Amino acid sequence: LPDLEDLISGGDWKGVRDLLSTQPVHVIADELSRLAPVERATAFRLLSKDRALRVFESMEPQEQGSLLSSLRDVQVRDLFHSMDPDDRVRLLDELPANLAKDLLSGLSPGERRLTSILLGYPEETVGRVMSPEFLSLRSSMTVGEAMEKVRRKGRDAETVYTLPVTDDTRGLVGVVSLRQLVLSEPESRIGELMTTEILSASVEEDQETAARRLQEAGLLALPVTDREGRLVGVYTVDDAMEVLRAEETEDIARGGGAEPLNVSYLAASVPRLARTRAPWLLVLILTAAVSVQVLNYFEETLEAVVTLALFIPLLIGTGGNVGAQSSTMVVRAMALDQVRFRDFLTVLFREVRVGLILGLMLGAIAVLPVSLVFDSKIGLVLSLSMLSICTFGALSGAALPLLAKRFGIDPAVASAPIITTLVDAIGLVIYFLIAKAVLDI
Amino acid sequence: LPDLEDLISGGDWKGVRDLLSTQPVHVIADELSRLAPVERATAFRLLSKDRALRVFESMEPQEQGSLLSSLRDVQVRDLFHSMDPDDRVRLLDELPANLAKDLLSGLSPGERRLTSILLGYPEETVGRVMSPEFLSLRSSMTVGEAMEKVRRKGRDAETVYTLPVTDDTRGLVGVVSLRQLVLSEPESRIGELMTTEILSASVEEDQETAARRLQEAGLLALPVTDREGRLVGVYTVDDAMEVLRAEETEDIARGGGAEPLNVSYLAASVPRLARTRAPWLLVLILTAAVSVQVLNYFEETLEAVVTLALFIPLLIGTGGNVGAQSSTMVVRAMALDQVRFRDFLTVLFREVRVGLILGLMLGAIAVLPVSLVFDSKIGLVLSLSMLSICTFGALSGAALPLLAKRFGIDPAVASAPIITTLVDAIGLVIYFLIAKAVLDI
Repeated sequence: LPDLEDLISGGDWKGVRDLLSTQPVHVIADELSRLAPVERATAFRLLSKDRALRVFESMEPQEQGSLLSSLRDVQVRDLFHSMDPDDRVRLLDELPANLAKDLLSGLSPGERRLTSILLGYPEETVGRVMSPEFLSLRSSMTVGEAMEKVRRKGRDAETVYTLPVTDDTRGLVGVVSLRQLVLSEPESRIGELMTTEILSASVEEDQETAARRLQEAGLLALPVTDREGRLVGVYTVDDAMEVLRAEETEDIARGGGAEPLNVSYLAASVPRLARTRAPWLLVLILTAAVSVQVLNYFEETLEAVVTLALFIPLLIGTGGNVGAQSSTMVVRAMALDQVRFRDFLTVLFREVRVGLILGLMLGAIAVLPVSLVFDSKIGLVLSLSMLSICTFGALSGAALPLLAKRFGIDPAVASAPIITTLVDAIGLVIYFLIAKAVLDI
Repeated sequence: LPDLEDLISGGDWKGVRDLLSTQPVHVIADELSRLAPVERATAFRLLSKDRALRVFESMEPQEQGSLLSSLRDVQVRDLFHSMDPDDRVRLLDELPANLAKDLLSGLSPGERRLTSILLGYPEETVGRVMSPEFLSLRSSMTVGEAMEKVRRKGRDAETVYTLPVTDDTRGLVGVVSLRQLVLSEPESRIGELMTTEILSASVEEDQETAARRLQEAGLLALPVTDREGRLVGVYTVDDAMEVLRAEETEDIARGGGAEPLNVSYLAASVPRLARTRAPWLLVLILTAAVSVQVLNYFEETLEAVVTLALFIPLLIGTGGNVGAQSSTMVVRAMALDQVRFRDFLTVLFREVRVGLILGLMLGAIAVLPVSLVFDSKIGLVLSLSMLSICTFGALSGAALPLLAKRFGIDPAVASAPIITTLVDAIGLVIYFLIAKAVLDI
């Protein structure tokens, strides 16, 4: 394969044309992404109109944006007009506001409608990721007529495998699959074949919730309806998987006390890596400063029995771990819709019992060695503290994510690191209060 | 809807027969699951042969197993013979070994081959979840002939939307979609339509790796080939999504220091919840016991300057948080195949720099208030310790998951809680060494 850059700098325009007309589109998109902006625009102009669109479509939105700014107005408009509405929405997010506005106003009324429909929905809703280009059938059609419609219009539709059936007012009344059509007699009626127990999504629903439903039912697409139950789009399995992956990366990052990167790990610069973590650490260090205050308050107790200091990392570490376990379990169960806010008391009661069991176990393990090496009163202090701190850790680990969700905060934010740090401070208070009581200081 | 239990106990066999022949299969499966074993077997025997299989297929593997043990041998064999091979493998996992062996040996040679093929692959491989019932085409066929084959054999195939194309020796040479077939002229040749840049999976490959590839390409199925490149199955998007969900739940649980539950959160008993966490806590508490030793070793330093104890939770907490952030990032990047072991040094060097940046920032923030409230030497000790501990935390957070994978351990095991606990102990050593040097104790 000759190098596109070499051909251009050598002025071999015949060679450039040959390469551009013979190579697969994803190879050309790759080659273009390695060129400088001016050369990229030059090469791009040499593509045939049909190929140009397909190459453009296989580029990333950021690359599309930078290419557009080097092309002439008429080309930009042509490209923009030929894109799929959902890809166009993604590109618009990358363009400067005035260019985006210009381009939108130049669209045909039909295309502008499709695009602004998607733009009109808030981020994170199904409306933003659905495709408004669907193919729908009527229940009065025969299978033969339906297949004819698929042949005629299937090229522009996002999917032809899941076919929603509508009534006179675009109301969703059923779903048939292309497989059913192919396996049925041409004279059969769609109304007899279609499933009427429909799993669908609402346009204003959360993307992740709808994606989970699609995943659980093992479907290839969900029809999307508006508030009036009218069909407005389809949400396909590939978009749903993309949404789930992004959501899971976000949950995992927040569970580890950082913001998601949104790019591949090795592609992120070191300052960017630091930036996703710094705000969390600042919040955490401020919370941790409370533990300094707590210890300062109990400094006399600490001076009287320095031995107490030895168990600080063990105790607060264990409390933090139990809290992290609980919050991780609860956050995941919430993401999978296994637990909701109305289960608040049930979950709390369960976790308190789990915390008690774990605290009893760990307290029982610690009491003997500590009593032998130090003394039995210290052993008692440690066991009682372990029991209380584990229970408290489990309780707050379960409560915080549920409360966060209740107040509109991502539950993953209220997870492991925050809980660990909170349990530290309160765990210390518990520890020193028990120590003062048992050791009589 | 009359109650099946009432009809049976009332001896109304006509009513039972009516219900069994008219209700949808999933309703019947639901009703059966509520009956006692003997009644369930009796009712099941009254189903027509064709319906019996469909009802059986919509039951859970555990329920299938218990039903089989109440049926007569010949019925058991009939049912078992008619199941799909991948469902049969799931059922076999639920049956006692001797019954499973008997049933397997009674299968026709062809069916036994299909089933034992799936059983022969190790767990977690694509072979275990693929379907061996696929529909394949030949490149010499016309679109009309291909559609005819889909109509004739499509009912038994796992999917008809992704159609692999094979040569004379079952070698995979291309893929066409049903959409392409439907949109093409009946006289076109498959060889002209098919894509030859095939994305496929190998039968011995890890389920998760193949599922990620399918997800990234936005495909509905991957053809599965054996070592010789021969087509042996298809891996469909619904199975891939199921695999990804289970893997992510496992990663998230381990990232929070617990084993995955494998059942819905509220369905798990409290002792079960405690059991998934106890082993981790035991490991963690043994590691944390090291920190008691460390502090014991430095007890004289601590007695000389009790103020040092005040910053223990703050310092080790921050170090643990930085370590947890690094490990979370690296574990996720490994799961998404963005980072491999050969990137070990690159990743370490990046994380050391991130740790230095974060340590400098946090050290700078801490130095002034601590110098004012306590004294400037303590402020210096704290800043230097913060810098060293953050760097060390980031380093170990990045190194451990990569090393774990290298030694065949799930990287998620070497994540947040373990790293937090390790960083605690070593962080304390760093802190006290710096304190002894600066304060000249």
